Amino acid sequence: MNNYVELEQEILQISQLNNVINLLNWDIAVNMPTGAAESREQEMLLLTSIVHSRLKASKLEELINKTSAEIADLDHWQLANLQRIKKNVFEATCISDDLQKRYVSSSTKCELIWREARKNNDYQRLKPYLQEVLSCVKEMAAAKSTYLKCSKYDALIDSYDPDRKSSEIKKVFSVLRESIPTLIEEIVERQKTTKILPLTEKIAKEQQKLIGKRIMELMGFNFASGRLDESTHPFCSGTPFDTRLTNRYKEEDFLSGLMGIIHETGHALYEQNLPNLYKNQPVGKAKGMAIHESQSLFWEMQVARSKAFSVFLSKLLRDEFGFKGAEYSNDNLYKLITRVKPDLIRVEADEVTYPMHVLLRFELEEELINGELTIDDLPSFWSNKMQEYLGIKPNTDKDGCMQDIHWPMGAFGYFPAYTNGAIIASMLMKSAKEKNSNIDNEIVNGDFANLNKFLDSNIRTYWFLKNYC
Amino acid sequence: MNNYVELEQEILQISQLNNVINLLNWDIAVNMPTGAAESREQEMLLLTSIVHSRLKASKLEELINKTSAEIADLDHWQLANLQRIKKNVFEATCISDDLQKRYVSSSTKCELIWREARKNNDYQRLKPYLQEVLSCVKEMAAAKSTYLKCSKYDALIDSYDPDRKSSEIKKVFSVLRESIPTLIEEIVERQKTTKILPLTEKIAKEQQKLIGKRIMELMGFNFASGRLDESTHPFCSGTPFDTRLTNRYKEEDFLSGLMGIIHETGHALYEQNLPNLYKNQPVGKAKGMAIHESQSLFWEMQVARSKAFSVFLSKLLRDEFGFKGAEYSNDNLYKLITRVKPDLIRVEADEVTYPMHVLLRFELEEELINGELTIDDLPSFWSNKMQEYLGIKPNTDKDGCMQDIHWPMGAFGYFPAYTNGAIIASMLMKSAKEKNSNIDNEIVNGDFANLNKFLDSNIRTYWFLKNYC
Repeated sequence: MNNYVELEQEILQISQLNNVINLLNWDIAVNMPTGAAESREQEMLLLTSIVHSRLKASKLEELINKTSAEIADLDHWQLANLQRIKKNVFEATCISDDLQKRYVSSSTKCELIWREARKNNDYQRLKPYLQEVLSCVKEMAAAKSTYLKCSKYDALIDSYDPDRKSSEIKKVFSVLRESIPTLIEEIVERQKTTKILPLTEKIAKEQQKLIGKRIMELMGFNFASGRLDESTHPFCSGTPFDTRLTNRYKEEDFLSGLMGIIHETGHALYEQNLPNLYKNQPVGKAKGMAIHESQSLFWEMQVARSKAFSVFLSKLLRDEFGFKGAEYSNDNLYKLITRVKPDLIRVEADEVTYPMHVLLRFELEEELINGELTIDDLPSFWSNKMQEYLGIKPNTDKDGCMQDIHWPMGAFGYFPAYTNGAIIASMLMKSAKEKNSNIDNEIVNGDFANLNKFLDSNIRTYWFLKNYC
Repeated sequence: MNNYVELEQEILQISQLNNVINLLNWDIAVNMPTGAAESREQEMLLLTSIVHSRLKASKLEELINKTSAEIADLDHWQLANLQRIKKNVFEATCISDDLQKRYVSSSTKCELIWREARKNNDYQRLKPYLQEVLSCVKEMAAAKSTYLKCSKYDALIDSYDPDRKSSEIKKVFSVLRESIPTLIEEIVERQKTTKILPLTEKIAKEQQKLIGKRIMELMGFNFASGRLDESTHPFCSGTPFDTRLTNRYKEEDFLSGLMGIIHETGHALYEQNLPNLYKNQPVGKAKGMAIHESQSLFWEMQVARSKAFSVFLSKLLRDEFGFKGAEYSNDNLYKLITRVKPDLIRVEADEVTYPMHVLLRFELEEELINGELTIDDLPSFWSNKMQEYLGIKPNTDKDGCMQDIHWPMGAFGYFPAYTNGAIIASMLMKSAKEKNSNIDNEIVNGDFANLNKFLDSNIRTYWFLKNYC
C-alpha cells in the first residue's frame, strides 16, 4: 500500500473512534439514566485515551514522515489533508497522556456537577471542579502555545477557529462594543410604539415537532442520515453519516423552539454535506466552530428571521397546520422574531444583544486564562460587566456566570466563534444575494435549493490550501 | 501494582469497550437512521477488532502467566475470575484476526440484508449472505472445538451455555419431543370447552407503557440505571450499569406487550443485580444465555403467567388504571395468558408449544454445522419439520426459516438456551416455593422482594468454582 493511503487508513480509524465518542456524548444528553454517569465517564475516558495514544503513536509519525517525502504524488485535497493531519498530530503530541486524562476526567466530572450546581444555584459547589478544569486548560494552552508560537489564549481559540488571533477578534469586537449599546437603545425605543400581538395559544409539543420536521425537510435535512430528538439544551452532534440534532419546546412560545430547530438544522446541513470522499479525514471535516456557527446562524438569523421567511412561515402555518389567529400574520411573526430585548441569558438573546453576551465572556475568559481573574472573583466580575454592557444585573449565579456549559466542559476560547459566526453568516448572505437577486422570492416560496447550492460550493465542500507546518 | 490487579485493569478496559459495543448495538435497533448503516458497521468492526487484538496481546498473556504463578494469593472470586479470563483469551487466540473480521463483517451485513429480505419474503436474496456467515461460523467452530476438545456444534453451544453438550441437550429434549405433542392435543381439546372472553378494547401505546413501567418498578427494575424503549423486536441490552430494554406494543393485545416487558425486565434484573465489585470482570458477568433466559422466563412463565399474578394484575388494572370490563377478571386474564395454540412464529408461541420450535432449530442447526444440511435445502426441511412437530406448515419463508434473527447474525448454537432456560426457570420456582410457602400470596400482593432475594443469592451474585483450563 502506498504511504499516503496507509496514512489515510490510520486516520480513518481515529475518526471512527471519534464518531463513536460523539454518539456516546449525544446519548448522554438524550438517553443516559443518571446512575450510569460514572461508568460512562470511564468508558469515554478510555476511548479518548485510545484516540490520544493513536495520534501519538510512532507508527503514525513514520507514515507522516514518509508521506511528507512524497508530496509530489499528492493532489491538492491530499496535500491539504496531510497538513491537517500533521497539525492534529503535533497538537496531540504536545499534551502528555497524564494531562490528557486529567483534562477529560475533570471536565466530564465538572460538567455533571455543573448540571446539579446550576439547578441549585450553588456556585460554591461548582468552584473547586471549575478550578481544576481551568488548571488543566491552562496547562494545555501553555503546551500548545509553544508549538503554535502564540499566546495561551490564542492557542485555545485556535481549537475552535483555526489561526484566529485574539488581537483580530478584539479589533472587530471593539466596533460592536462601540455601536451596539446605542443601537439597542434606538431599537428598544422604536419598539415601544410598534404594535405586536403576543402568542397566546399553547402549541402541543408533538405539533411543534411536526412543524419543525416539515421545515427541516424543506431546508434539505436528510432524515435517512440523521434524527431530531429532545434534550435540555438544543445541540447538533453525531457524525456526518448520522447527524443528530436536539431541541427543546415551550408550549407557550413555539417560535423559540422553531428557531432552535432551524439553527441546529443549519449545523446539521453543514455536516451532512461535507465532501463525501473525505468525511472521515481532517480535510473533509468542518472548518472550526466559527464557520460552523456561521452555518447555523445563516439559517437562523439571515434566512429564518427575514421578512421573506415570515411570509413563507405564515402561509405554511395557515395552509398546512391550520393556524388561524391574527398573531400568525407574516407582519406580526416578523415583529416577534426580530424583537430586541436585553436578557440575562445568552441562549435567549436576540441578534442585536447577543454579541454583548459574547464580548463579556470573551473578555472574562481571556483574563481567567492569563491569570488576571480568579474563579473566586468570577461571579462579581460577571455581574458588573452585565450591568455595564446590557444594563441588567443577575440576582443569581444561575442566571449569571453559571448559565453556560462551555467552561465546566473545558471549552475556553469557544465563545468568540458565535459572534464571528454571526458576522460570517451576514457576509455570506450579502454575497449570496449579490449572486442571485431572486433569493427573497425563493425563501417566500420555501425553496432553499439555491441557498444550499451556494453553501455547498462556497463553504461545505470548499477547502483552501494553507501551509500549517 | 501486583499482577492480578494489573490483569483486572486490562480486562476492565476490554469490558468497557464491550459496553460501548453493546450501547451502539442498542442504538442501531432503537435510533439509527438507515443511511448510517454502513458507517456504523465500520465503526463496530473497528471496535470489535480492537477488543480482539487486546485479548490476543502478548501483554495480557504475560499477565495471565505471572498471575497463574501466584494463585495462592487469590481469593475464590479472583481465582474464578482468572479461570474465566483464561478461557476468554484462549478462545480469542484460536481465532485469526482475518477470520474474526470476516465473521463480524459478514454477520453485520447479513443481519441488514435479512431485515429487508424477510420483509420481502425473499430467501434467494438472503442465501449467499447466510452461506458466508455459516462458512465463517463453521471455521470458528472448528478452531474452538480443537481447543475445547469437543465437537464443532458443542463448541458453538459453549458460547451461549458454557460446558453444555449437545448430547446432554438431546437427552432432555427427547423427553419433550415424546411428551409435548400429546400434551398439546390434550390442552387444545380441553380449551375447546373453556369459555374465554377475548380482549376487544384497544389500549393506547402510552397507556401500555405506563402499565409496563409500573410493573417494572414493582419487580425492582432500577430506572436510575436503565431505560425502556421501543424496537421492532423486544430485547434487553446495554450494560450492567445502563440496562436498556425494548418492547413493542399491539393496541389490540396489550397482554402480549406486557409479557414482553416482563420477560425483558427479567433479563434486566439479572444484569442490574450482578455482583457490584465484578460487573466489569468475567466472573461478574451473566453465566451464559441459558441462565439468562432462565431469568427472563422465570418472571414471564413462572411468575407472570401464574394464577397468583392474574389476581394481582386484575386488581392493578382495575384500581390504578381504571380497567372495568369482565375480560379483565383474574380468571379470564389467567385463561388468556395460558392459552395454548400452535403457531408458525416462535416469538408468538406459548409455554407448551415453544419447546417444539426450539427442537426444530436445534436439530437443523446441528445439521447445518455438520454439513448434513445445506442452506439451499433449509426452507423445505424447515417446513417439513414444522408440519411434523406442530402440525402446521408455513406458506412463506418469512413465516418459516427466515423468521429469526439468530442465524443471520451468526448466532448458531443459541436456540437450545431458550428451552434450557425454561427448564431452569421451572426448577428455580420449585425450589423458591419449597423455601417459602408464602410466595403465591406475595405475588398476589405485588410483593416481589423475597423472589428477588432468592434470585440474588442463588443466581445473580452466586459463582461456582470450576476449573476451565
